[in-house]
Amino acid sequence: MKNLGYYNGRCDEIENVLIPMYDRACFFGDGIYDATCSRNHRIFALDEHVDRFFSSAELLAIDLPCTKQELKDLLNDLVKKMDSGENFVYFQATRGGGPVRNHTFTEGAKANLWVNMFHKPMMDIYKKITLITLEDTRFFHCNIKTINLIPAVVAAEKAKQAGCFEAVLHRSGRVTEGSHSNVHIIKDGTLITAPLDNLILPGIARKHIIKACGVLGIPVEERPYQVEDLFAADEILVSSASTMCLSAEELDGKSVGGKAPELLKKLQDYLMEEFLNETAE
Amino acid sequence: MKNLGYYNGRCDEIENVLIPMYDRACFFGDGIYDATCSRNHRIFALDEHVDRFFSSAELLAIDLPCTKQELKDLLNDLVKKMDSGENFVYFQATRGGGPVRNHTFTEGAKANLWVNMFHKPMMDIYKKITLITLEDTRFFHCNIKTINLIPAVVAAEKAKQAGCFEAVLHRSGRVTEGSHSNVHIIKDGTLITAPLDNLILPGIARKHIIKACGVLGIPVEERPYQVEDLFAADEILVSSASTMCLSAEELDGKSVGGKAPELLKKLQDYLMEEFLNETAE
Repeated sequence: MKNLGYYNGRCDEIENVLIPMYDRACFFGDGIYDATCSRNHRIFALDEHVDRFFSSAELLAIDLPCTKQELKDLLNDLVKKMDSGENFVYFQATRGGGPVRNHTFTEGAKANLWVNMFHKPMMDIYKKITLITLEDTRFFHCNIKTINLIPAVVAAEKAKQAGCFEAVLHRSGRVTEGSHSNVHIIKDGTLITAPLDNLILPGIARKHIIKACGVLGIPVEERPYQVEDLFAADEILVSSASTMCLSAEELDGKSVGGKAPELLKKLQDYLMEEFLNETAE
Repeated sequence: MKNLGYYNGRCDEIENVLIPMYDRACFFGDGIYDATCSRNHRIFALDEHVDRFFSSAELLAIDLPCTKQELKDLLNDLVKKMDSGENFVYFQATRGGGPVRNHTFTEGAKANLWVNMFHKPMMDIYKKITLITLEDTRFFHCNIKTINLIPAVVAAEKAKQAGCFEAVLHRSGRVTEGSHSNVHIIKDGTLITAPLDNLILPGIARKHIIKACGVLGIPVEERPYQVEDLFAADEILVSSASTMCLSAEELDGKSVGGKAPELLKKLQDYLMEEFLNETAE
């Protein structure tokens, strides 16, 4: 298949999959998701993404219609149907629904399970990116991977309009994360990254970076930092399931980073090797 | 029809209307809506709701696929199809979509127009309600009527679990609004209501209440107020398109209001008469 859409057991190309208009996704964005990528039809870090998916569901009291193992089996089956081995692998659950719209949970409704896959070639991890900063106007549940994403959508579009790859969000100067990534800095040989709280997503790539730093002997500080620290950083890193660990050369039109190229390469090489090993044929 | 679902020209009972899984509502909750009610198949305050719908769309750069007049004509036509004259009238627009999920606006995609109607009997405006208070954890775009409603959903469900009608939200003590309503107080003969900013929806019922106060000689202060002001208020009012202007007798399990019954009745009588006149056969 060139791409794949799955909804509660029905599977076809995305264009052919229709869903009930009363799914609570449509009225309230009332759902959670997770996403990763595949190579050689092998899904990267699937256990961790499925764990986070279940954690997001629990935080919103969405009762998932499957076990972790059932979901993994399903995704591993579905990814084999794809023509390409390199895919964006997306899965979502919404809080059921019914013909009468009420904010309160629809009584008796069961959660719906969605999957989407489409070909996405791997990014070049060594490519430099450009960034803008924007005030973070999102809600205070950013630790949950929900489909309430309008502020992220608007921020990503602003970055695109500015000719940039990503928007780095901050709350009154305190850096939180990107519109669809985590953000970190390297300063004087140390990796600094925002702490896990309700202001950022507990990124799987973030976790892999911290683990890699441990192996490579790079000290890590999980603590709040400011927009001015971005400008003063030796490197600015942007991580997500699909970008892994990119570094920036420009922020708000000013040159940034490029002051710790060896440390950066060591980290990127490590992450790349881990990815290639995990997804080897 | 017992209920009604409409999506880009297709119209049927809600249960029979299917939509593409790649509508951006499903991935991002990327849409706006408005809602009002009908009586005698006449839609209440339609001009104002359509105006706000267009304003929400403009604030999110969603290019609506119709003019205001076309939308009003459509809604007036659709409401006539309903078996019942008393309906919840809901309309929504989402930012198109396409088979590849990207946060940035889908290029070339056209906005989708949705309508839902279902029978909803009029509420008794004189009925007393009970409330709880909750911290407002929503985003900073509450002036836009979007379908990113998870925090409102969770708050409404908490109110229901507590046996209450609505949750009153506050940001560190400053009252913003209800999970799906505006909130006001009467104190010493004056109506006090939160000012219009990005923390609250510019409610149509709120506007009608303020206008009614003008006619009835009740002073109005649009200014921030605190949770403790709710407890000290002579009356607490909750307004929305479907509730119009209800008053509370209990907040977080404590007795509240009931200290300005005559002024309250005068206001409610005025609003009720306005509604009945506007929707007379």
